[in-house]
Amino acid sequence: MVFAGGTRLAAAQGTTADPDAERKADLVTAYRILVNENILDSFGHVSVRSARDPNICLMPRAMPPSLVAQDDILALRVADSQPIDPKGRRVNGERYIHGEIYKARPDVMSVIHSHSPSVIPLSLTAIRLRPVVAQAGFLPPETPTFEIRDVRRPGDRGMQVTDSARGAALARVLSSYPAALMRGHGDVVVGSSIKQAVVYAAYVDINARMQMQALLLSRDIVTMNEPELFKPEEFDINRPWEHFKQKTLDDAAKAKVDRAQFGLDQTQTKQ
Amino acid sequence: MVFAGGTRLAAAQGTTADPDAERKADLVTAYRILVNENILDSFGHVSVRSARDPNICLMPRAMPPSLVAQDDILALRVADSQPIDPKGRRVNGERYIHGEIYKARPDVMSVIHSHSPSVIPLSLTAIRLRPVVAQAGFLPPETPTFEIRDVRRPGDRGMQVTDSARGAALARVLSSYPAALMRGHGDVVVGSSIKQAVVYAAYVDINARMQMQALLLSRDIVTMNEPELFKPEEFDINRPWEHFKQKTLDDAAKAKVDRAQFGLDQTQTKQ
Amino acid sequence: MVFAGGTRLAAAQGTTADPDAERKADLVTAYRILVNENILDSFGHVSVRSARDPNICLMPRAMPPSLVAQDDILALRVADSQPIDPKGRRVNGERYIHGEIYKARPDVMSVIHSHSPSVIPLSLTAIRLRPVVAQAGFLPPETPTFEIRDVRRPGDRGMQVTDSARGAALARVLSSYPAALMRGHGDVVVGSSIKQAVVYAAYVDINARMQMQALLLSRDIVTMNEPELFKPEEFDINRPWEHFKQKTLDDAAKAKVDRAQFGLDQTQTKQ
Amino acid sequence: MVFAGGTRLAAAQGTTADPDAERKADLVTAYRILVNENILDSFGHVSVRSARDPNICLMPRAMPPSLVAQDDILALRVADSQPIDPKGRRVNGERYIHGEIYKARPDVMSVIHSHSPSVIPLSLTAIRLRPVVAQAGFLPPETPTFEIRDVRRPGDRGMQVTDSARGAALARVLSSYPAALMRGHGDVVVGSSIKQAVVYAAYVDINARMQMQALLLSRDIVTMNEPELFKPEEFDINRPWEHFKQKTLDDAAKAKVDRAQFGLDQTQTKQ
Repeated sequence: MVFAGGTRLAAAQGTTADPDAERKADLVTAYRILVNENILDSFGHVSVRSARDPNICLMPRAMPPSLVAQDDILALRVADSQPIDPKGRRVNGERYIHGEIYKARPDVMSVIHSHSPSVIPLSLTAIRLRPVVAQAGFLPPETPTFEIRDVRRPGDRGMQVTDSARGAALARVLSSYPAALMRGHGDVVVGSSIKQAVVYAAYVDINARMQMQALLLSRDIVTMNEPELFKPEEFDINRPWEHFKQKTLDDAAKAKVDRAQFGLDQTQTKQ
Repeated sequence: MVFAGGTRLAAAQGTTADPDAERKADLVTAYRILVNENILDSFGHVSVRSARDPNICLMPRAMPPSLVAQDDILALRVADSQPIDPKGRRVNGERYIHGEIYKARPDVMSVIHSHSPSVIPLSLTAIRLRPVVAQAGFLPPETPTFEIRDVRRPGDRGMQVTDSARGAALARVLSSYPAALMRGHGDVVVGSSIKQAVVYAAYVDINARMQMQALLLSRDIVTMNEPELFKPEEFDINRPWEHFKQKTLDDAAKAKVDRAQFGLDQTQTKQ
Repeated sequence: MVFAGGTRLAAAQGTTADPDAERKADLVTAYRILVNENILDSFGHVSVRSARDPNICLMPRAMPPSLVAQDDILALRVADSQPIDPKGRRVNGERYIHGEIYKARPDVMSVIHSHSPSVIPLSLTAIRLRPVVAQAGFLPPETPTFEIRDVRRPGDRGMQVTDSARGAALARVLSSYPAALMRGHGDVVVGSSIKQAVVYAAYVDINARMQMQALLLSRDIVTMNEPELFKPEEFDINRPWEHFKQKTLDDAAKAKVDRAQFGLDQTQTKQ
Repeated sequence: MVFAGGTRLAAAQGTTADPDAERKADLVTAYRILVNENILDSFGHVSVRSARDPNICLMPRAMPPSLVAQDDILALRVADSQPIDPKGRRVNGERYIHGEIYKARPDVMSVIHSHSPSVIPLSLTAIRLRPVVAQAGFLPPETPTFEIRDVRRPGDRGMQVTDSARGAALARVLSSYPAALMRGHGDVVVGSSIKQAVVYAAYVDINARMQMQALLLSRDIVTMNEPELFKPEEFDINRPWEHFKQKTLDDAAKAKVDRAQFGLDQTQTKQ
């Protein structure tokens, strides 16, 4: 596909020299896609490892996913999940999920934490996510579920991963897998690129839904066996990425044109 | 976030002096959000306590939720749920829900009654709503269900809360909780602000859906325990509020621009 | 509500003298609403008794519901379900549903036949539709399901109601009720006006969905008892009608403006 | 219906002489419809036999379904599923599904392979798809499910139909039926025209959903018997085709107008 405005845009933004320019653009697109596909709700976050320095990751400030723009992206140190320069903005309370996974997994370039609605019911039971649909062949025979009670210390409260200890515990459960469910909370999905993480997150949700529906019909369902699982390089990530992007484009364009043309802004919905 | 039109708008409307200006604006936004999130259907209503006088609450006339505008808002006395000046408009038959809850709960600033679709199936069974998703940690371990038959007097008819006695009975079941289900009807959700009530109402619906789906998979599900529940101040209400608002804005803007530009109105759909 | 364009529109159309003008307009709106609410799929039809002559009913030709306009409406004789003047157009094969119900039920002013998706699963089982949600209090304690096999004669084929005998059999099952399910097919819903039939059809679908979901959770659910059911005059039909119309208006307006402005038509989607 | 732009368009495109012009246009419309009806996800493909030569079929290159345009269509030989002239484009890895079915079924003019979401849960169980809704009366009493393990040779990997042997095995399971499910993968649906295949694919999905929901309520459901099934010529394909097309038109028009007017393109969503 040819994007006519590509070169012109790069020139206008003067981003040619930023090695993270493409990753930042993809990060914003990832938010649009995951909101549109109903994987991200009001919360949830996506990050990417910097191309400039593997000890740095990029992640938006604490904010609603539907509003993320490039200007909201902050750089965090992988070592301690702290922002290099917060620019006066509130950082995400669960950024330790990202920092600790990047620390434990040099192969991971992107991390998604979401409240993916189809995995939550499964996470509340003893049933494990198993690959059942062809496109989820990147999953292991059994995906682990993180139980935060296993790492709770006396006095600890809440379900959120708000410090390095919890983040490291989650990273241990994730192990070398592409995904881990989080009981009553959602999941974490990782990839060797933003595109891979986004597509994996979408298919984890689809696979969970198909598995649940099949289990309601019968306790005896066929899950994929070893020769049916695939290597990452066997999955054409670009096709679903472009398909998802096309769907968000249509929506974004429609909203944008209306606001641009009539000067509508958020305040005016209050009239 | 900066809303460029904010100051200009306030000036143009001359609303600077009205202490309820923000609450009225939020009330209209609440309707937009709750219709868009499928919490309000053709019925259901939202109110807010007046900032001017705690013995007064503000609530739209009896009308379709999708059409509510600031001009539709009436002031009701908390004491008897009667309008101070109906302005010739029909008041809501179930306004007693609001009046009686404000009377019993000085801490409550906003009340939502809806036919929230995911709570209704639960309400028809002996199963109680229990917190299962992280964002619903504002719920108690068990949310009560109001059974209108318990307060029906001989000759009484209907499922609706259409007098002070029924309203007071519902308020007693609600007790000090943020929500109560209503059998075969929906729920009532309260908050210390419109924003909190709206976000709570959305997560009550999500939590009920997740709980139901998990229960179909297994009767043995993990519900949140005491250290996993949270205090209201631990929940960032603004993030989901802004996220939900952004989603309604896109839709509202699209509809508005089309009608403004081509002079389309409701009558013309009849052609 | 004031519809600014109303008078102007009536004048422009010269419809002032047609006693069926309002019914025709409502009939088109009914199609828009029922497609938008996912009650009508590619098939299904709505009719209204003529205000001019109770022995005549008005119904669109055989066509996709999403495309119905006033010009598509034909007049049929209630006596034999045949068109008075087909104007060279194909009439609906299942028009006998409408004719036979108008014949058997002088109180009925509008008939809807749809493949309402939530009633079909129920119709395939021995479970009867029962009122469980407050707004479906117009339903009887048990709504009958029409089994076409009961009236099949040797050599008969198909599931459709394509002659007067089948239509009359369905009307007998409907009896004096507002609705009857049709096994593996959908339902028929009637009303004393188009508005009432449309709103009833929407709540039959909602009630069936809620009842199904509750039954998956527990076989012991609370259904509405006699004092909880209501008389038609106790249900404010106008509020859901206006709410549903507002939702279709937004969609219709968006489609219309785009096509009008850029001369897009159906052929161009083929490019 | 009259499409005002039809003649003008044909003239402008100079397509009058191409016997496949209509099929190519319908093929693009088929993609729009199946994406819009949620039958095609990021993958899946539709083909049509050439009107020029029955030993040739037409099919888009490997690409996201939402982006398919006429220029993407390639001609493949039915004999070996290879492109006559790939024009430097990547052909679809699963094109053998199409080639082998056209080879085995001279009556088939169009083939759809999709990840139709409602058939997948059924395909994971021993339950067979059975006709339960009136519009799915084109189905046999029991639709077969293809199990790729049955034809796997030592060393074979994956779930996809990526060679002639697998394609031929699928064609054998399909037999003379209009559809076959594929375990953990989706289905294949065929028709005597693109329109028929598209409408059949939509009703296979609807029928599977209704059957599943009914089975959750009761194991004893009524499926359609022989006199209730219909001959293809008894089903008015045009009505659902036009209905589905109208729905895609609205969406397509909205996206198109916005992009055309404001010069928005995919790159700009990255800002």
